[in-house]
Formats: sequence, structure tokens, C-alpha cells
Amino acid sequence: MTTGIVLLNLGGPRDLDEVEPFLVKLFADREIIKLPWQSILGPFIARRRTPAVRELYRAIGGGSPLLSWTQRQAAGMVERLDRLSPETAPHLPFVAFRYAAPSSEDALVAMAEAGVERAVAFTQYPQFSCATTGSSLNELWRAADRVGLADRFSWSVIDRWYLHPGFIEAMVQRVREGLEGYPEEERGDVLLLFSAHSLPLEMVKRGDPYIREVSATVDAVVEALGGRHPFTLSWQSEVGPVAWMGPSTERTIADLASMGVKNALVVPIAFTSDHIETLSELDIELAEQAHAAGMTGFRRAPALNDHPGFIDAMADIVHRHLSTREVCSPLYGVRCGGCTNAACRNILRPATPYTRLPLPAARG
Amino acid sequence: MTTGIVLLNLGGPRDLDEVEPFLVKLFADREIIKLPWQSILGPFIARRRTPAVRELYRAIGGGSPLLSWTQRQAAGMVERLDRLSPETAPHLPFVAFRYAAPSSEDALVAMAEAGVERAVAFTQYPQFSCATTGSSLNELWRAADRVGLADRFSWSVIDRWYLHPGFIEAMVQRVREGLEGYPEEERGDVLLLFSAHSLPLEMVKRGDPYIREVSATVDAVVEALGGRHPFTLSWQSEVGPVAWMGPSTERTIADLASMGVKNALVVPIAFTSDHIETLSELDIELAEQAHAAGMTGFRRAPALNDHPGFIDAMADIVHRHLSTREVCSPLYGVRCGGCTNAACRNILRPATPYTRLPLPAARG
Repeated sequence: MTTGIVLLNLGGPRDLDEVEPFLVKLFADREIIKLPWQSILGPFIARRRTPAVRELYRAIGGGSPLLSWTQRQAAGMVERLDRLSPETAPHLPFVAFRYAAPSSEDALVAMAEAGVERAVAFTQYPQFSCATTGSSLNELWRAADRVGLADRFSWSVIDRWYLHPGFIEAMVQRVREGLEGYPEEERGDVLLLFSAHSLPLEMVKRGDPYIREVSATVDAVVEALGGRHPFTLSWQSEVGPVAWMGPSTERTIADLASMGVKNALVVPIAFTSDHIETLSELDIELAEQAHAAGMTGFRRAPALNDHPGFIDAMADIVHRHLSTREVCSPLYGVRCGGCTNAACRNILRPATPYTRLPLPAARG
Repeated sequence: MTTGIVLLNLGGPRDLDEVEPFLVKLFADREIIKLPWQSILGPFIARRRTPAVRELYRAIGGGSPLLSWTQRQAAGMVERLDRLSPETAPHLPFVAFRYAAPSSEDALVAMAEAGVERAVAFTQYPQFSCATTGSSLNELWRAADRVGLADRFSWSVIDRWYLHPGFIEAMVQRVREGLEGYPEEERGDVLLLFSAHSLPLEMVKRGDPYIREVSATVDAVVEALGGRHPFTLSWQSEVGPVAWMGPSTERTIADLASMGVKNALVVPIAFTSDHIETLSELDIELAEQAHAAGMTGFRRAPALNDHPGFIDAMADIVHRHLSTREVCSPLYGVRCGGCTNAACRNILRPATPYTRLPLPAARG
């Protein structure tokens, strides 16, 4: 029986011409950004931001490396899975990006052509947020409807894996690699600055589990490192006029520098591959800011990318999922308290029985 | 060599006459509440709230049980410590409450009378916040100055223990005891509603580690339980006009009830003993709200109180601290990025060398 594994992620423009359509899709996603007159204002904001964002992509080589990393991870994962789980082999990987090619439609059509019947939606975001994994899954089910494949596959969902031991261990190794960039006598005192993409506070207050899950990952990594490093957690990449979870990474770096901290190793904790937020925001923008403020030892731990232990972990996550026959984690069906989106937390044609909480009654 | 162990906590009024002075001290603490004309407005607000808060204490038996639980824990802890660590025995326990008797002054004077030289300040808040442990420690050092004992003791600090295995295991047992209140066939599906005291968002954004540490405790408890329960985390007891971390426990209960959840076990995750926030807010106020909203199976897991495994954990935490000769955790000296309080993160006459980050430069 062929098993299709669909890797979900945000995606990125492969070249400079794809920057505008990427931003247009991003600003059209009402599951993360709600604008008045979104169908007019969304494209307007996207087009106005395009030239500046194109410059950022130009500076990191002319495009996002996310697809090529994802393809390498996927190839390694299915090769391992075929060995680990011959009873569900062959395993075929598909990529479904939320705001770039290949899209959910692309993945679904390719799955139908390959004769897949059993499909696993495997988020590439370790920690769950309605803004990331939630939005990708909702889009996947809508896309299946749009391309007439809503009845074709039997689905299960890997919706989070923020404490998977292989993932934690691979992160620990990347932190150690980052620490090797410092003189040996300074390594023990380097401050670890864990950084994750921020989330609008409105989503946090609605009950989105992302903040809790990122926090749990950070502590697991620090524990596995031996628990002796000073560390802190901050939130990056906030945009626009809404309030975001803080403290921001930008402000934290400024504050640490002003307190005389020289050595800080920034550790991206909520992305697994390099992309614009690591290669541009951390490595160029925030690194320049840190150096200008006197932080001579500002470095970044490598992203997981093609770390073999991480690819082992990906295969193990899918293998465990398939062998327990779980349709999703115990948390996926627990809608946020303040949820207003009836489409949320759905699973199309679930492989084993699935129930989710219904929408809460409208607030008084 | 006599070792003094000072248990730090917020404290509570032992009888109804102590409610007003308790609230006056609470609203005078500029490390958690900054009011204009605080010396006038603080007592004014405290006195205005006194009658209602007295009624809450009357309903739970006429006073806070926190001192009696703390004394029982302390007695068990030092008895175990004398066996575990004869080289630092005898161990004498002292209680220093932030807003009630016995105060920091009381503890310090008693320590001097008992001939203590080596002292350990042991917070009873598992997770660190500047609003709780931070404020208690700052007060302890000020009190030592006020009573002329700033030069008397050699200090170290146990500033957090939110992932201590014995603490996690005792929490797991309390959750299981809570689950035993449900019919056996329903236990597997009970939603665990972890609840912690909220924190003003201003402190969160300044870099206070409390949200991350509470989150890490919750995930460690769920993992140790076997990871199969649906659960969520919410924040209780917000007061006044400032913005607080959310979602609130009150709102979460209303939302869960409106989504048809019948069975929810609330688990206090940031306090170790019963006090007004468990006995009144959770067991009376929020339980009534939950039942009125149709949640027939709203229950609370017992607080740790005199759980023998927890008292073992307390002794182990102190024993490990003394045997590693650490003066504090690697995080205590890492001031919040937005810190403006020069007194923060101090250790008076540290037993082994201690440095903290200096205050950041004033923000532009």
C-alpha cells in the first residue's frame, strides 16, 4: 500500500519573480491576518512591500532555500521509512507550501497520479499554532475540494512534535556546533538566545498553544544540554500595527548588548530549515545591530537543514504515528477557547475515528 | 555548622483581622504594582477591597492555610535533610512571607538568635517571576539591612525548580488523584486545565521568564502522565485595569463549557499549597461558574500540601543545591532585558562568587 507523506510548511519564493505572488498569498490568508477589504487591501500591501522584500531575497542569494532543504529532508525520510516500516511502504513524499509552489493543489494532484490512498499530513512546524500548521491544514482540505479530490485519500495528521527526543537531540547538536565558534574558554558562559517567530497577542489570548509549546521545546533543549547555560527566549519578525507576544528578539539583543553581554548564540527554535528569517533577519539585520551595539560574539546556531539525526527523527515521527494508528495528537481536536473559525481542527476522511470540539457559542 | 533554610512565599492572612494589613502590604509592593501616589492610593485600594476579601477568607474557614502547610513541609524537609546531608546539619527552617507574618525580618531575627551562619533562600514558587521570587528576594535583602543583619549570614539562593523530577512526579500523582474522582470509563478523556496565576503583559514583554517556565512544567507533567490527555493552559486571578497574559482561566472555562466539555480537571501548576486562589477562586467561584454553564464534571486536583513525595523533592532540591555549592541557578543573574530595578537579581554576601548582568542603559 502506497503511503503519501505531505510535508506542510509556509514556503518561500524560489526566485525574485516569485516574491510578489508569495506576499499576495500571505496577505490573503485570513487565518493569520484579518484586514478590512482584504481582497483589495491585501494585494495592495503585498505589492507595496515587494521591492524591499525582493532586496532581502537578493541579499541571501536570490531566493528561498526552503524547497531544496525540504526535498532533501523528504528524500532521506522516505528512504528511512521504507526500511523502518515495510508494511506501509512504499512511502512517497509530497510538499505542500502555504504561500509558494508547490501548493496544496500541486501535492494533491501528484498524489492522485501516484496512486496514493493513505495520506499523512506532516507539519514541518514543530510547535502547533493556528497561524502555521492550522492554516496549512485548513488550506489542504479546501484545496482537496477545489481539485475534486476530497473523496480520494484517507488522512491522518501529525500536528506537532515539539518534544520528540530525536528532534531535541538534533537541536542540541546544532547548539553545540554553534558554541564551537567561540574560543573554548568562553563557551561555558555564552548566553543562548532562543528565538521563535512571534504571534499576535490576540491569538495567544484566544488559547493558541504555540507559546507554551515553543517554551517546552526550549527547556527540553537546555535540559538535554546539561542545564548549565544562561539562556533566554524572545520572539522575532513581528510586523504591522497589532500587539505581538514579546519580548522581541530585536529589543532583547539591544538590551543584552547594553548590559554588556558580548557572547550570545541565537538559536532558531521554531523553524527547521534556513529561510528568510534566519538568513536575512538573524544573520544580516540583527547581527549588524548586535555588532553595532558592541556585542562582539553574536553568532547563530545552524538550522537543522540536512542534519542526519533530524532526518532520522522525521522518519521516526512518521513511523510512530503510523504504527500507533493515531489520527492526530490528543491536542488537535481541542479547539482554542476563543475559536470563531468553523473550519479549524478538521481532518478530511480520517483514517481512524476523529472528533473535535464544536465551535463555542458566540461570546456575549 | 547550622544551615538555615528560608522558605519564601507570598503568605496569607491567618485570620480575618490580618486581611487588611495583608492587602496594604500587597498594594505597597512596587515590584509588582506601580501606582501613582502609591503611598496614598495603595492603602486606599487595599482598604476598599478588604470587606470583599474578608468574605472570601470567611468562606474558606476564616484564614489562609498557607503558613500551616509551609510549616509542615518545612519540618519534613529538614528532618530528611539532616539524614541526606549530615555535613551541613543541623538544618533549621524559617519562613519569610512577603505580605504576611512571619515576615523577612521575623525570619532573619530568628536565624540570628539560632546562630545560623550559612543561609539558603529557597523560593516556594517553582517557576521564577520578578513579581514573586524576585520581589521576595529583594525584600529579604532590604529586611536584612533594616534589622542590622546584612553582614551576618552567608547566602545562596534556590531561585527556581520548575522541572525538578520529584516535583513533577508529585504533581503527576496529584493529577491522578484528581482523575480518580471521575468514573473509570471517563478518566481517559478528562480535559486537564492547567491554571497558573497570570502576569501583567508588561512584565512578560520585559523578559520575565515565568510564562516559559510554567509552560515547561505543564509539558513535563503531561509527558510524565503518558502524554495521552487533552490539556490546555490558562492564567487566573488577573485584577485591575492593566493587560494580563491570557487566555484567562475564567474565560477558558466559559469557552470549554460552551463547546460542550463536561469533564475538566483543573490543575494549579504554579502554587504548591492550598490558599485563597485554589480554595476560593477555583473551588468556589470558578466551580460555580463551570457548573452553571453545564460543566457537570468540573473538579480540581489536590494541591501538593503535605504530599510525602513533594517533601522528599524539597529536601532533594536543597541537598543538590548544597552539594553542588552553586550560589543560584544559571538564570538568576540574567536580568530581564527591560529591567529598570537596580536592586533586582542581587545576592547578599554570596556563599560562592556571584555576578549578575548590570542594568541596561536607559531606553532611547
